[in-house]
Amino acid sequence: MQDLYASRTDRTAAIIARQDPVVYGGGSYAQAIEPAQLSSYERDGFLLLEDVFSEDEVQALLDEIKRMSADPAITVLEEAITEPGSDAVRSIFRVHELSERIGLLARDPRLINVARQILGSEVYMHQSRANMKPGFKGKEFYWHSDFETWHVEDGMPAMRALSCSVLLTDNNACNGPLMLVPGSHQQFISCQGQTPENHYKKSLKKQEYGVPDTLSLQLLVEQGGIQPMTAKAGSVVFFDCNTMHGSNGNISPWPRANVFMVYNSMENTLQPPKYGLKPRPEHIATRKRFQALEPVEAPATAG
Amino acid sequence: MQDLYASRTDRTAAIIARQDPVVYGGGSYAQAIEPAQLSSYERDGFLLLEDVFSEDEVQALLDEIKRMSADPAITVLEEAITEPGSDAVRSIFRVHELSERIGLLARDPRLINVARQILGSEVYMHQSRANMKPGFKGKEFYWHSDFETWHVEDGMPAMRALSCSVLLTDNNACNGPLMLVPGSHQQFISCQGQTPENHYKKSLKKQEYGVPDTLSLQLLVEQGGIQPMTAKAGSVVFFDCNTMHGSNGNISPWPRANVFMVYNSMENTLQPPKYGLKPRPEHIATRKRFQALEPVEAPATAG
Repeated sequence: MQDLYASRTDRTAAIIARQDPVVYGGGSYAQAIEPAQLSSYERDGFLLLEDVFSEDEVQALLDEIKRMSADPAITVLEEAITEPGSDAVRSIFRVHELSERIGLLARDPRLINVARQILGSEVYMHQSRANMKPGFKGKEFYWHSDFETWHVEDGMPAMRALSCSVLLTDNNACNGPLMLVPGSHQQFISCQGQTPENHYKKSLKKQEYGVPDTLSLQLLVEQGGIQPMTAKAGSVVFFDCNTMHGSNGNISPWPRANVFMVYNSMENTLQPPKYGLKPRPEHIATRKRFQALEPVEAPATAG
Repeated sequence: MQDLYASRTDRTAAIIARQDPVVYGGGSYAQAIEPAQLSSYERDGFLLLEDVFSEDEVQALLDEIKRMSADPAITVLEEAITEPGSDAVRSIFRVHELSERIGLLARDPRLINVARQILGSEVYMHQSRANMKPGFKGKEFYWHSDFETWHVEDGMPAMRALSCSVLLTDNNACNGPLMLVPGSHQQFISCQGQTPENHYKKSLKKQEYGVPDTLSLQLLVEQGGIQPMTAKAGSVVFFDCNTMHGSNGNISPWPRANVFMVYNSMENTLQPPKYGLKPRPEHIATRKRFQALEPVEAPATAG
């Protein structure tokens, strides 16, 4: 069967039209967001919801992540990733299983029902992580489509997954906010260059493969511009798995923290990776232990 | 005589109150900006003037800089600085002498009379450069006070100089705009660590000495916040020589270009550098060939 979204082959870079829906089943599977919000998501490839979590909820989540980042039992795990050239923890993967509190967040109806509504099915967690971009020395994260990586390296068949980023600190123009290219989810950028084994260990720190070419990026940005997600703590950004995004470094004293979770449709579970690549570890891409997450009405961050 | 602004000694970092005026002679030496603007500059340590140069003027300046950046006779000079790890020209120093057009810009009344008004005297060019922060791979420039460097490495006696940055591209939240800390000009951050010989060659690419400590930065930002200079091409930012500033990297496709000029008071010409350091070259810090610049009414960018 022909791969609709071939990438990292010996071909040159190419722009391929998206073959999959953005909103599945007309957005009727669950009732979490309004039709206008659904349309906006479908058009732009993302949606910012403000004031989703209260100050108390944000503080509790932030405390939990700070606690985990300082816990030697956590930082010793391969789930914990440090900044290049520093010991500061940049990300903790599989955070919804390592923390009961964040496990509840993952099933919070304010998040999971948006995912179920957009993806038109039950969903499971493909990947979760807490991100801490420290002040003063936070490094950039270059432009990429998550789907490109998940398709090639994890064997995710279709564009039927979405990410949600729960902002735990204010994101402003100065601390390296997430930047999204509106409309970019409708085009798949096939990247140049083949992928060596085990490169994921490095790519979590610095992208080297699956990097879109500058000409394609320029075209996407000419068409859609760039939307920096400057918003208050407690806001949530939902974005399609194929939306082009990145972030600049952060020399400001203000750290940037979020919980980042990827919901994938139960009808889109992983196939073998492309090109005979070895599957990435389970904490980076859930392949074996997936199960549909039930919404849980209890407050995600009850003390 | 005691050095009011000692830095890079064997002491620890320290915050020292500014001893010099910000506006000299009550701002009556020339008439370029309004009293409210003068007060705002005095309070914040900077002033943004929008729509100073027309689209045509901006285009002519941009064309001139692009021409120079591609001219092998220019790029071979030690005045031309490239990005770390790339051949792209990042800065061209002494640009007001290398280009007649930019020489006229340096004497444009819209710029030089602001400098004369604030510094209360005739002024000369301490340093000029064109900066091109390329798209996709523009690197960050960490926090620093220019005066700290100029005082230690160039022997500039007092805080009686100002910089002006003429924006030649739109600066937005995504392309690494200049960030300034309001009020920081009132405090001198004495930095730790002594300075090796000839370090300027590296420091133009990456700061290693004269780097303020994070505690002092945190205090300055708690007091004043951070103001990103997001503004349209044709705007001009004037800022005091001691205002703390820096910029994040730029992964956006949009380059960031400006002409940056430092006016120093004719009553504040250079002394020997501190600690027996060898003077930096003339194109980095005008030591010998200074002369008061006369305002020239002719359009700076006449074709």
